[in-house]
Formats: sequence, C-alpha cells, structure tokens
Amino acid sequence: MVNALGRHILAEVHGCDFDLLNDVEKVEEIMVNAALEAGAEIREVVFHKFSPQGVSGVVVISESHLAIHTWPELGYAAVDVFTCGERVNPWDACNYLAKGFRAKSVDARETRRGTMYSTPQKEAVNL
Amino acid sequence: MVNALGRHILAEVHGCDFDLLNDVEKVEEIMVNAALEAGAEIREVVFHKFSPQGVSGVVVISESHLAIHTWPELGYAAVDVFTCGERVNPWDACNYLAKGFRAKSVDARETRRGTMYSTPQKEAVNL
Repeated sequence: MVNALGRHILAEVHGCDFDLLNDVEKVEEIMVNAALEAGAEIREVVFHKFSPQGVSGVVVISESHLAIHTWPELGYAAVDVFTCGERVNPWDACNYLAKGFRAKSVDARETRRGTMYSTPQKEAVNL
Repeated sequence: MVNALGRHILAEVHGCDFDLLNDVEKVEEIMVNAALEAGAEIREVVFHKFSPQGVSGVVVISESHLAIHTWPELGYAAVDVFTCGERVNPWDACNYLAKGFRAKSVDARETRRGTMYSTPQKEAVNL
C-alpha cells in the first residue's frame, strides 16, 4: 500500500428519501455523528439549506473533513470523508452515514492524498 | 463527456513556503479569492489553525465547496474544488490558488460526481 498523508473517500449515495436529504438539521446530525462514529475530533460545523431544496454542509475535523451536498429531488447525495493519520478510519464514517441516510446504494471509492510523503512509521517494540 | 451533476478537482499542491501554508489568514484569503475568481457565490467560510502547524479550512459555495488542508513542514497542501452547474469552472479556482500559493508543482485531477444523472440540456436555439 502506498504511504500517504490522508485517505479520501468519495461516496455517491443514491436512493434516499427526499424529506431526509432536504432536512438540514437531520443531515447535519447524521454527518456529525458519522464523524464521531469514526472517532474524529470535531472542530467546525457549517450547514446550509438551499431554496427550493438541497443541503450543503461540512464538518471540519482535526483529521481533515467530511462534506455533503444533497439533491433531494434525485434522492442523491455527494459525500466526502477525508481523514489523516492512522487513528481514524474514514470507512467507519462512510458506513455509518450510508445507514443514516437509508441509502439504497452507495458507490464509494478511496483515494490517497499526499502520496509523495511517507506517514510516520510506528516504532517496532518488543520484536 | 459523461453527464454529471458536479465536477470535483482533487489537487496535490507541492513546493509551497512554510510560512504561507501556516498563515491561516493568508490561506483563507487565497481560498476565498479562488472561489470568487471562478465566479462562485460564497455561503460559509470556516478556517482553523492547528498547533504546532497546519491549517484546515472550507469555503462553502452555492455551487458546492472548496477545501484545504496544509502541511507547512512538507510544503504541501491537499486541495479540493467541487462545483456544480455549468456557470462555474473549478479549474479557474484551481489555477488561481496554485499561483496564490506559489506552488512549485500541482498534481490535479478532475472527477465527475453524480454521473447517474443528466445535467439539464440547454435548448437548441436558432439552429
């Protein structure tokens, strides 16, 4: 596996209810809880409701960020989960939010960010 | 070209000065101006300075978002420019910020988001 500074999941979330994707408070709650589920430390939370429909929001975490943009009329959300370091697994957040949004399908792929740089190696202890 | 709801550029920005990548006000200024350069409508701006170094921040725009995470000690920043619709070109923002950060190199690639859905076709007029 290539050493990298960060892991970035781009998730295409399909088949969700209009009302859920259009409820800014629920969308924020699911995204914040997804970050917490992965053990991330939350720094900033900003969400915005669009007219006539749609929600955009970002959860800035110490380990990078989660972002979402929803198209309620299509039952679709574009979601990003970007984490740095070894402590937090972005797939924990991704799996949580897929359930939270009751998605019929999720097409998610992971991209490595900062691959020119090595992550610090853990010290070999008691080997 | 595949129809898509959004265009998402993931940019690996290398060879920047430590002091610039560690200056939260300058990083915010460059990212906000990059959004404006592309003609985006800014909705929310949140930036955070980490100790001992590093900046994370997001500019939420009507057309989606811009995000950045900097590693000043490596001269590196991971940048996202995600835009929806035909009006805003994410490459305008990407090119602007590459200059703003005086990057020695930028490895940027565009990913289409929401490719299951067609963007509205413009009407053919006077053909």
